[in-house]
Amino acid sequence: MFDNQNSYHHTMKWSLQTILQRFQGTLLNGSYETMCAQYVDHLCTLEEGNVGGLSFFYQPKYLKQLYQTKASAILVPKNFTLIQPIEPILISVAHPYNCFISLMEEVSHQRRGVRSGVESPSYIGQEVSVGVNLYRGAFSYIGNHVVIGDNVKIYPHVYVGNHVTIGDNSILYSGSKLGDHTVIGQRCVIHAGAIIGSQGFGFITHQDHSYQRIPSIGSVVLENDVEIGTNTTIDAATIGKTHIGTGTKIDNLVHIAHNVEIGKHTGIAAQVGIAGSTKVGSYCRLGGQVGIAGHIQLGDGLTALGKAGITRSFKEGYVTLSGTPAFENRKFLACYAWFKKLGQEMKKKKET
Amino acid sequence: MFDNQNSYHHTMKWSLQTILQRFQGTLLNGSYETMCAQYVDHLCTLEEGNVGGLSFFYQPKYLKQLYQTKASAILVPKNFTLIQPIEPILISVAHPYNCFISLMEEVSHQRRGVRSGVESPSYIGQEVSVGVNLYRGAFSYIGNHVVIGDNVKIYPHVYVGNHVTIGDNSILYSGSKLGDHTVIGQRCVIHAGAIIGSQGFGFITHQDHSYQRIPSIGSVVLENDVEIGTNTTIDAATIGKTHIGTGTKIDNLVHIAHNVEIGKHTGIAAQVGIAGSTKVGSYCRLGGQVGIAGHIQLGDGLTALGKAGITRSFKEGYVTLSGTPAFENRKFLACYAWFKKLGQEMKKKKET
Amino acid sequence: MFDNQNSYHHTMKWSLQTILQRFQGTLLNGSYETMCAQYVDHLCTLEEGNVGGLSFFYQPKYLKQLYQTKASAILVPKNFTLIQPIEPILISVAHPYNCFISLMEEVSHQRRGVRSGVESPSYIGQEVSVGVNLYRGAFSYIGNHVVIGDNVKIYPHVYVGNHVTIGDNSILYSGSKLGDHTVIGQRCVIHAGAIIGSQGFGFITHQDHSYQRIPSIGSVVLENDVEIGTNTTIDAATIGKTHIGTGTKIDNLVHIAHNVEIGKHTGIAAQVGIAGSTKVGSYCRLGGQVGIAGHIQLGDGLTALGKAGITRSFKEGYVTLSGTPAFENRKFLACYAWFKKLGQEMKKKKET
Repeated sequence: MFDNQNSYHHTMKWSLQTILQRFQGTLLNGSYETMCAQYVDHLCTLEEGNVGGLSFFYQPKYLKQLYQTKASAILVPKNFTLIQPIEPILISVAHPYNCFISLMEEVSHQRRGVRSGVESPSYIGQEVSVGVNLYRGAFSYIGNHVVIGDNVKIYPHVYVGNHVTIGDNSILYSGSKLGDHTVIGQRCVIHAGAIIGSQGFGFITHQDHSYQRIPSIGSVVLENDVEIGTNTTIDAATIGKTHIGTGTKIDNLVHIAHNVEIGKHTGIAAQVGIAGSTKVGSYCRLGGQVGIAGHIQLGDGLTALGKAGITRSFKEGYVTLSGTPAFENRKFLACYAWFKKLGQEMKKKKET
Repeated sequence: MFDNQNSYHHTMKWSLQTILQRFQGTLLNGSYETMCAQYVDHLCTLEEGNVGGLSFFYQPKYLKQLYQTKASAILVPKNFTLIQPIEPILISVAHPYNCFISLMEEVSHQRRGVRSGVESPSYIGQEVSVGVNLYRGAFSYIGNHVVIGDNVKIYPHVYVGNHVTIGDNSILYSGSKLGDHTVIGQRCVIHAGAIIGSQGFGFITHQDHSYQRIPSIGSVVLENDVEIGTNTTIDAATIGKTHIGTGTKIDNLVHIAHNVEIGKHTGIAAQVGIAGSTKVGSYCRLGGQVGIAGHIQLGDGLTALGKAGITRSFKEGYVTLSGTPAFENRKFLACYAWFKKLGQEMKKKKET
Repeated sequence: MFDNQNSYHHTMKWSLQTILQRFQGTLLNGSYETMCAQYVDHLCTLEEGNVGGLSFFYQPKYLKQLYQTKASAILVPKNFTLIQPIEPILISVAHPYNCFISLMEEVSHQRRGVRSGVESPSYIGQEVSVGVNLYRGAFSYIGNHVVIGDNVKIYPHVYVGNHVTIGDNSILYSGSKLGDHTVIGQRCVIHAGAIIGSQGFGFITHQDHSYQRIPSIGSVVLENDVEIGTNTTIDAATIGKTHIGTGTKIDNLVHIAHNVEIGKHTGIAAQVGIAGSTKVGSYCRLGGQVGIAGHIQLGDGLTALGKAGITRSFKEGYVTLSGTPAFENRKFLACYAWFKKLGQEMKKKKET
């Protein structure tokens, strides 16, 4: 059960001649005839390469792996010079990694298949408009007054509330949920178990310490090309919109609270938490488990290293933060270097 | 798709005359006749106010926004004095925020609608007793020997195990799951994807380093008015109860381990983790991403700031903690201020 | 509703005579006849013991609880000496805790019942092979080309993608999801809402700052006896396998990124995050909320205390880490002790 053979091995097969022609490559070793007779049936890294595998090389730091790999063929850069004989067949191409990615996309596409049609049983409410090529998986639930674009894929166990809009070519994986009034742009990917548009965590505290919920009458808007990770949660705004900008990618188990606004092309790693009403700029990068306080503002291009706890605004952006409360990483590292010597330093001080 | 028009605009409409009468308000500017002819059709903040919007003002720090808002009407406090002419119609009322919240509740109620009846297909086991006005969504699953009170709303994809009790007026949103023997009080809200009553993470380690599961024969009890956030997990006790007290509110992606006990009216922000058998008092406030070790005790009224890591008991309560291991926040901040100077201080010391 | 009576009270009943015989025990107090007439109907801790309850004692630190408990009977070690009269009946056995666990297992087994058969409606694809004693709950979804072993339990709302393999005696609790090509070993337990085999979070950044997804063509492999906690997420490898070794136990809300490899019998507490391509050894223990950077290697037997942020490899293993960036805990504690005095120390320094 645990052998290294991938079950998709036999589903893809490329002749090296096809690969060479497709990427306008040049054969670097062996005879052209031998190459033409050779097929690869899976993609692999250099490190995990084995017979029948096609790999790629473009970063000098992996040179050792290149000369040790058991892969059958390798895409290398145009300027590559072989310094010793090597078993695998080398084909030089303009952009080895890009070529390799395009082959991965082909495999990925074939593996996932093209889901379409409606599986039974599934539930669909009233006044729902759907585009062409819809896939509606078994046990998916679509509420009332929903607008669904073309080529949308709704996997099993998805829940779509009332008054939701889903743009063309978006995918909702199994068990993801969209609360009422959620708006999803085009080409968005909502991974399994992600929940978008729950009521935000806002309460009034009474004098007897009891809490009264502040009703949530807002929603969540994802612009185009947004990706939301597995089991991530994004709460609806109290009033107005929780807003995620174009091309922003969010990893698993992230918490985005009510009324948060995030700019374009920002990357958010797993388990980040962003408290209510905070604004995060475009082109930011938030490392794993970063926490961001509510009602603050982070400018464009800001980077927060893993576990940073950001407690105040950094409107200027383009800074790298770490620590809790977070400050500039360069300074943090200097302080932390001293912190690590504290035991020793202080002891010396006592002795003198 | 991304315009600012909320799809619920046209579903609510209030005349300002009604608003004024309802809250026993006083008109502060313009003519009574003009006001009577005016309608508002949505609620908004001052900052995001636009035509047809009703907003509120009660905190002096938002005075600037008051004079800049494009909202059509604003609820202000009784003692409010207008210092310059203003476009929106101002109505002074005893408690602007409370009045506004009551309007939000009305909108929220209307948006969510009143779900009732049974959607098909859904699954219900044997010996299940249900109260009046039950909503059982499509693809919901209810096991055997379950007791469900009046006005309970069970959304699609909810799983209710065997021997579960759910009190009156509680709501289980889509995809939430209740393990066997879970007890849910009255007026509880379980948000989408929350999972209550899984087996706790307890193992015996054998000499060969392998783990043997300690069976879980306990359960989870939520008292009345408890709210559990999206994708939050609360594990069943090994023996006895994991217990959440009346009125306690828990945000998204929180982990509550087996045998934890939490008091009344405690607020727990997103991504907090509480390890096994720990007792948290009443009226506590735990900030985002706080971690609490197992088998410790935190007294009433304790506050833990975001990311604090609490490793020992603080039975006295009424203290504010930060840092890891956590100690008193006031002291932590003093130490951290010096930490941030460490690089500089130490360098100076070397130089002298 | 919140009384302390467990609804399973009356479902199990043991005579103390049976208990004594079963564990080859010795009666330590009272008359044999009295004991024979006595029954217990639930298991309890010393602290929460009450009438009809059977408890256990083996650690001297709980001696006080032993003499105060209201449990009706207690299993104690062979060498136990009673120093004062006590109400409960004491039975000395070779391994009180192990005996107690075996009784817990009996209760646990009886409470969960034996689920088997197929509930309706459920969905099953083409070319699915199943073993004996399968349970397929209502609203469960099984894709195409799936291989399922004997005695597998698939709870309601489970999603199983295409080309998945599930070994004998594994349990998938409600709402757990397995992406395409996932391999689950024997006797694995996948808790509710856990999602295994989503696409990893890998992107190429273009010059215009936009992200392009790196396709995911790998999978996840769990060896035998692995346990995955509630709402935990484990991403599929980009190429190859995300791999979890035999007997490794993972708690709730944990994030395991693409291409991570974890050894055997490692224990991972709640809310841990492990970034892409990192290798964690066997017999490690990762505390709650630990974060581990990508592309690093942690050796066997490593312990990371709660909230540690591990940013570099510790290949040697068998070390205890804390802090962020993490280093040896013994040293960290010394430094932190000085950190806590910094305010005071520095003030003194200024004064002199």
